[in-house]
Amino acid sequence: MQIGTLTIVGVGLIGGSIGLAAKQRGLANKVIGIGRNLESLERARKLGAIDLGYLEAAPALRDADFVVFCTPVDQIAQQAVSFAPHCRPGTLLTDAGSTKAKIVAALEGKLPTGVSFVGSHPLAGSEKRGPQFADANLFQNRWTVVTQTPATDTESLKKVSGFWQALGSKVQILSPEEHDRGLAVTSHVPHLVAAALAAGLPAELFDLAATGFRDTTRIAAGDPGLWTAICQHNRDALLEAFVPFQERLAQLRAALESRDWNSLWAFLTQAKKVRDDLGN
Amino acid sequence: MQIGTLTIVGVGLIGGSIGLAAKQRGLANKVIGIGRNLESLERARKLGAIDLGYLEAAPALRDADFVVFCTPVDQIAQQAVSFAPHCRPGTLLTDAGSTKAKIVAALEGKLPTGVSFVGSHPLAGSEKRGPQFADANLFQNRWTVVTQTPATDTESLKKVSGFWQALGSKVQILSPEEHDRGLAVTSHVPHLVAAALAAGLPAELFDLAATGFRDTTRIAAGDPGLWTAICQHNRDALLEAFVPFQERLAQLRAALESRDWNSLWAFLTQAKKVRDDLGN
Repeated sequence: MQIGTLTIVGVGLIGGSIGLAAKQRGLANKVIGIGRNLESLERARKLGAIDLGYLEAAPALRDADFVVFCTPVDQIAQQAVSFAPHCRPGTLLTDAGSTKAKIVAALEGKLPTGVSFVGSHPLAGSEKRGPQFADANLFQNRWTVVTQTPATDTESLKKVSGFWQALGSKVQILSPEEHDRGLAVTSHVPHLVAAALAAGLPAELFDLAATGFRDTTRIAAGDPGLWTAICQHNRDALLEAFVPFQERLAQLRAALESRDWNSLWAFLTQAKKVRDDLGN
Repeated sequence: MQIGTLTIVGVGLIGGSIGLAAKQRGLANKVIGIGRNLESLERARKLGAIDLGYLEAAPALRDADFVVFCTPVDQIAQQAVSFAPHCRPGTLLTDAGSTKAKIVAALEGKLPTGVSFVGSHPLAGSEKRGPQFADANLFQNRWTVVTQTPATDTESLKKVSGFWQALGSKVQILSPEEHDRGLAVTSHVPHLVAAALAAGLPAELFDLAATGFRDTTRIAAGDPGLWTAICQHNRDALLEAFVPFQERLAQLRAALESRDWNSLWAFLTQAKKVRDDLGN
């Protein structure tokens, strides 16, 4: 796969990593960034993540062959709708948003003829923000979900999958709804749980919080605005996964209350089996 | 501080790390291990964690100046009571157990004259087990809680604190109850929460579980037997910390259900502040 001009909308940790990876792997002849301020665009350029930065969409999209939106999930669809008319026919759009159903639904049938969108979500990143945390190997051996609906153009789906594979990623094709239900379990519920643990730690117990607490709550340092938008987008699937989680906690509490140590042991044994099977 | 003979009861990850650290730092002239099988004692000896291993207590304690119990929390008190008569007067006993109140209470007034016990808990370790995971720097810059009650001998408290400091640890003195209430919040509730998350992951979603899920659930790979014993020991403080955690989750769920995104954002903002303040 070879891209003439790759335009990245939002050059933070994810967008910056895409730029670095694309340049280092020779995937794109030219990488353009669109950002909200010159300072962070300049930082991304100095880091080698983009060749050129723009604050305005039109000049950054004129020659684009491939556009990736790496902005917060509540901005992607409206940006794609307003940016698409600046693109040439044949331009392919994708994104890196943590939710898919609302974004894909908002874009199906809304783009000019010749410009198509396929949703993506690279399962990589961290609680950090900004191009200074960008990493050319961020996608190496990680999974990226690429979404397919009955309206998805097969050729575009192949190209978007090939794009992520060219960055080192493995690709899994799911419907947007399958993606959102899965991520509710593997990411969105854990995020709220980590936040609930972190929020309960008084400062006087900081010294007693060792590696276990730190690992368990690391993601709670994620940006509250980004995560509120994710929860807003994926509210229904999130609630659907939240309820059985609360039930498992209630089961653990009942075992403690009734001193049912056999049940507690059996629960911990099953949890360990899953975690061991999952691997590092 | 200089110890003639240091005896370690249970030479796994923690006991092995104590042995390695004590030998590398020249803290003890001789390090003896007591274990349940020759194979793991031999492994510990080859790793340099102990000089000599015994399956029986009496010969391993005859010359001991300092004894550390690194066995599961439900075994420490009864072992200390049955081992103490084999010790010379002046021998100091401590432990590395994750709970303190029951262990300390079970030993106060129960040991022969001249043999004293001070409870300890080094806040280090991992979900792994066995001397092959031992690390001479495990305690470096970590906190160890050393417990004090009205019955604690001040000289012994000083020596036990000095022991952990000599292994590189920082020491915090707490009552056994303060320790247990604190650890319920920083370790025991997070463990059950991680288990409840891990237990809810079906195999078909493994590929969608990225770094966030893996961090959040890492401790769920801990040994179910050890953790059941910890929960059993610290049941009351654990339940006391569990209830407000469940309330915070209920608060998050209510915000999702009523689409109260401002409350959700405020909650995530407070959690992020705590996690940022806690540091890496």
